[in-house]
Amino acid sequence: MDFSELRAEFPVLRRLAYLNAGTDGPLPGRAVAAAAQELQRQADEGRAGTHHEHMFELRKQLRGVYAGLLHCEPRDVALATCTSEGIAHIVAGLELAAGDEILTSDEEHPGLLGALAAARELRGARVREVPLTQIAESVSPATRLIACCHVGWMSGSLAPAALTEVDVPVLFDGAQGVGAVPVDVAALACDAYAGSGQKWMCGPDGTGMLFVSARLRERIAVSRRGYGNLAEPNAGLDAGLHEDARRLDTFSLGNETLACALAASGTLEEAGWDAVQTRARELAAQLATRLDEAGRTVAPRGATTLVAFSSADPAAERARLAEQGVVVRSIPGRPWLRASVGGWNDEHDLDRLIAALSPA
Amino acid sequence: MDFSELRAEFPVLRRLAYLNAGTDGPLPGRAVAAAAQELQRQADEGRAGTHHEHMFELRKQLRGVYAGLLHCEPRDVALATCTSEGIAHIVAGLELAAGDEILTSDEEHPGLLGALAAARELRGARVREVPLTQIAESVSPATRLIACCHVGWMSGSLAPAALTEVDVPVLFDGAQGVGAVPVDVAALACDAYAGSGQKWMCGPDGTGMLFVSARLRERIAVSRRGYGNLAEPNAGLDAGLHEDARRLDTFSLGNETLACALAASGTLEEAGWDAVQTRARELAAQLATRLDEAGRTVAPRGATTLVAFSSADPAAERARLAEQGVVVRSIPGRPWLRASVGGWNDEHDLDRLIAALSPA
Repeated sequence: MDFSELRAEFPVLRRLAYLNAGTDGPLPGRAVAAAAQELQRQADEGRAGTHHEHMFELRKQLRGVYAGLLHCEPRDVALATCTSEGIAHIVAGLELAAGDEILTSDEEHPGLLGALAAARELRGARVREVPLTQIAESVSPATRLIACCHVGWMSGSLAPAALTEVDVPVLFDGAQGVGAVPVDVAALACDAYAGSGQKWMCGPDGTGMLFVSARLRERIAVSRRGYGNLAEPNAGLDAGLHEDARRLDTFSLGNETLACALAASGTLEEAGWDAVQTRARELAAQLATRLDEAGRTVAPRGATTLVAFSSADPAAERARLAEQGVVVRSIPGRPWLRASVGGWNDEHDLDRLIAALSPA
Repeated sequence: MDFSELRAEFPVLRRLAYLNAGTDGPLPGRAVAAAAQELQRQADEGRAGTHHEHMFELRKQLRGVYAGLLHCEPRDVALATCTSEGIAHIVAGLELAAGDEILTSDEEHPGLLGALAAARELRGARVREVPLTQIAESVSPATRLIACCHVGWMSGSLAPAALTEVDVPVLFDGAQGVGAVPVDVAALACDAYAGSGQKWMCGPDGTGMLFVSARLRERIAVSRRGYGNLAEPNAGLDAGLHEDARRLDTFSLGNETLACALAASGTLEEAGWDAVQTRARELAAQLATRLDEAGRTVAPRGATTLVAFSSADPAAERARLAEQGVVVRSIPGRPWLRASVGGWNDEHDLDRLIAALSPA
């Protein structure tokens, strides 16, 4: 599948310069069809008999896809409903003590900060925010966890390589990482990596993943239990948890949701993840250059798929761009608009954005 | 909408005597259409702009539906992905201490027992299992929580009315209650009631609800936070939680899932919840009588929609019934088959079950 064929898989791109995968990716037509077909089967045949075997098979397949993207074994990947859920599992599950420090950056997403606020409020943990570039050097004797973005959601910055050298567990918020840029959890030397299914993997809302290393896994207290993660559900109080990362699986994911996610990732797989990601980064770099030439200040970024740029009135300009069929978002608390560039976009989408901008 | 019109809404009933709503309800055709339409719109228009406003609107509508069924205010209902998630929120959130006792029955579901096992393992709580009929009289000075079924999943027993008189918080597992039988959380005098969206409400997998009283709510520690339950997500570490039960909302529910659930409940609403529930209980009582006449022992049950009955070889008989288009389930650890009878079923479904049974 070449890039024009890939592009044709996404109905939204027929009309819009959709540059918003950092919120929610474009949804391929075949993902809609897969979900509808799955639901129709449930309606026709009922949800009994093979319904649950089918669910386990779909879960296994999706876990395999996520593991492939993260370059780890499926046994180290839990299924989640979003990035925040995976983050919360780790931060809450560590059962930190009063005075324990969590080190984070000053450009984190509400989903990560929510988990840290809970640890502060409920367990007396201290949360220290430093610039992302300085995070590795900021570890103190009290630091028990580093929790920060792999790719920053505000401007597409990249976590520093020096994080591979630190001595405390690192939990990455990979919402803007997995699917967008190459991720190898071993090379990143992280103990946990939480990611989204609905952004750069173009799946449905309500999907996501959590990589957790074997050594961190055994330190995580799992208070949420059900069919999703019990090893022997019918063993009553002795049901126990799966040994592997399935112990951190979310409670319930419908077969239609799983099938939708698999069809979406299958679309990207056919075009080739490496090719899609390379193209996305190239287009994003191109956009950054063109925005600079157009007199906009591009916010600090790494070799990622996000491009944030200055706007005199982000909310108003976002709305005006939307009227012209160009979809970007504003960033709360920063004077920026953010464009998310995928391998499904093309130069024409960038042309439309540049053409629609107000004079600098 | 009369009962034959209601029945016609469910494609599975054209061919099968589907008696399995206690696992997963039949899915109405219009629920499939609603989900497919929602996803198609996302694919066509992208997931930006009104996508999230629409999500809040759908969440509000579904919360209202759930509150209507539970006879409480929407502000006291959290959205969940299943019953087990709601149960886990309460049991884990109480942060019990070593020696604190949770009183439960000996006919509970894995999703409830999983939460209790976690409290035992992680917090040193004691779990005491007694017969459901004796649970109210079994409260001890150490009892901090009663956690048990409103309607027992194994045989359709009903929690004793004496539970309205106890002095400790009661958490009901309402997976076989809400949608199936009338539920009034005030009349039940419970502090929490967790229920399923995919069983007696005929919605998609991955939906559910949690009622929690205002007085219990303020005792529940909420360690899981994200867009789903933060009051001001963009306020960083000070984002805070919603004051009302939304603080216990699950992380993420796709608009297609919400729309599917709403279309399903809308179908039942058109037939009238009272009428549907009354008919279901009448048909179930009728089935119990006919099974008895057919020489089967009916397990202890209340005026509910479940009918469990003796089978010499439940697994084999279940499979044989399925071959004849009659869908029931077996119950782990008991020599029973269980039929779930909804207001969408009819006498012909019962005839088919009775006719297909092996000689007693």
